[in-house]
Amino acid sequence: MIPGFHGVREAVTGGQAPIREIWVAEGKKTLRTGEILQMAKEKNIPVIIKKNEELSQLLPDISHQGIVALVEGFSYCELSRLTDTRPKNQALLIALDHITDEGNMGAIIRTAVFFGANGLIIPKDRSAGITANVVKRSSGAWMHLPIARVVNLGRALDTLNKNGFWIIGTSGEGRESIYNFDWNRDVVLVLGNEQKGLSQSVGKRCHEIVGIPVSGPAESLNVSVACGVILSEVTRQRKAGKLEDIEND
Amino acid sequence: MIPGFHGVREAVTGGQAPIREIWVAEGKKTLRTGEILQMAKEKNIPVIIKKNEELSQLLPDISHQGIVALVEGFSYCELSRLTDTRPKNQALLIALDHITDEGNMGAIIRTAVFFGANGLIIPKDRSAGITANVVKRSSGAWMHLPIARVVNLGRALDTLNKNGFWIIGTSGEGRESIYNFDWNRDVVLVLGNEQKGLSQSVGKRCHEIVGIPVSGPAESLNVSVACGVILSEVTRQRKAGKLEDIEND
Repeated sequence: MIPGFHGVREAVTGGQAPIREIWVAEGKKTLRTGEILQMAKEKNIPVIIKKNEELSQLLPDISHQGIVALVEGFSYCELSRLTDTRPKNQALLIALDHITDEGNMGAIIRTAVFFGANGLIIPKDRSAGITANVVKRSSGAWMHLPIARVVNLGRALDTLNKNGFWIIGTSGEGRESIYNFDWNRDVVLVLGNEQKGLSQSVGKRCHEIVGIPVSGPAESLNVSVACGVILSEVTRQRKAGKLEDIEND
Repeated sequence: MIPGFHGVREAVTGGQAPIREIWVAEGKKTLRTGEILQMAKEKNIPVIIKKNEELSQLLPDISHQGIVALVEGFSYCELSRLTDTRPKNQALLIALDHITDEGNMGAIIRTAVFFGANGLIIPKDRSAGITANVVKRSSGAWMHLPIARVVNLGRALDTLNKNGFWIIGTSGEGRESIYNFDWNRDVVLVLGNEQKGLSQSVGKRCHEIVGIPVSGPAESLNVSVACGVILSEVTRQRKAGKLEDIEND
């Protein structure tokens, strides 16, 4: 289920996930709803009127804004899909080492898609999955990102390592500043759990641990903010690199 | 009220806000609690045992982890404090143009403190304030940041402008890339509302509107992630500038 205007509109226009039907709360006739329902009609997507309370019961604790799209179940991809399609020396995958907060997971997906990451890897256990809340918090971005769910994150990183990826962990105690690290290579960026950081089995597989230099008295950043900061630096460097290539030609 | 281990520990050790008392849930005797209570004892802070349900009633929807510090009411500072104490050409203030989500507000405060911003400006109406939830989501960082609450954000920006600050708005449609903009000046960075972006009265006061270049199909970032990305670029440029100064000496 995809709740909320933004998510439903993305689902209708993006069209990556097949929509089974759209539910609208009774009496919900705003301009924004009308626009979405018009598109739904053009695409022959059934629209069903529900009681607002019914929607709230189906999606507790989620602000659904009186509109919900019902899509086919989220399908994770194979890890091999992420290694196959990469652009040379510019691949960027993100692995989440047991992120449990759904808000963080959603924001990370949105951020990953914004900065053009090629895929996400999450572990099966002790991790948030792609739930309705994650979908909502990603503001529709989840549709644009292949996500692989693996039984053992360490073994997945071994596979990626064998495929030529650099495994780069992040930590407040990172040895290397993200601004000094050279991001022009195929990278798997690993983000650790909100409280515990990187697990031991993942940390020992990292070629390098990078950190964001702190300039003030706060010791750490929210994990989705840290993700944004690092992906921004990756894309900044890669674009600057391309600029130099053009200038040198 | 400051809920949770991390917040209470920061409050006890940081000591910026005077603590009236600490409440602990009955039977809550973990290592982390013991450590905090030992510090409280040394500082003569009264500790009161409460029923866990009582704490949950006082702080609905907030994960308090069985420990809460009761501090004197949050005191906002005067706008003049923010203009007085700035480092030359390196001042960094953040103004929030009606951010309503408390999670975002907390994450922005944490991010601002991490990157050494000098203060925050928020409007009195139609904006989240510094609530218990914001305090918790800031992971204790709120104590390190002077925050001014103003009746009219536009007029506050006028005052800052007269004091030599550059008013820099942010928007997905920003004319100038954050990577090309020269951040070596006194800056008020203005972040817009989660849905509506910058308000008209604020937008027309901006010397420049900057944007984060998008590299993928997602059109926008969460506002706290965007804040982190921009502050990271500001500090990166400023540190690089200082490095050049040293090399030129």
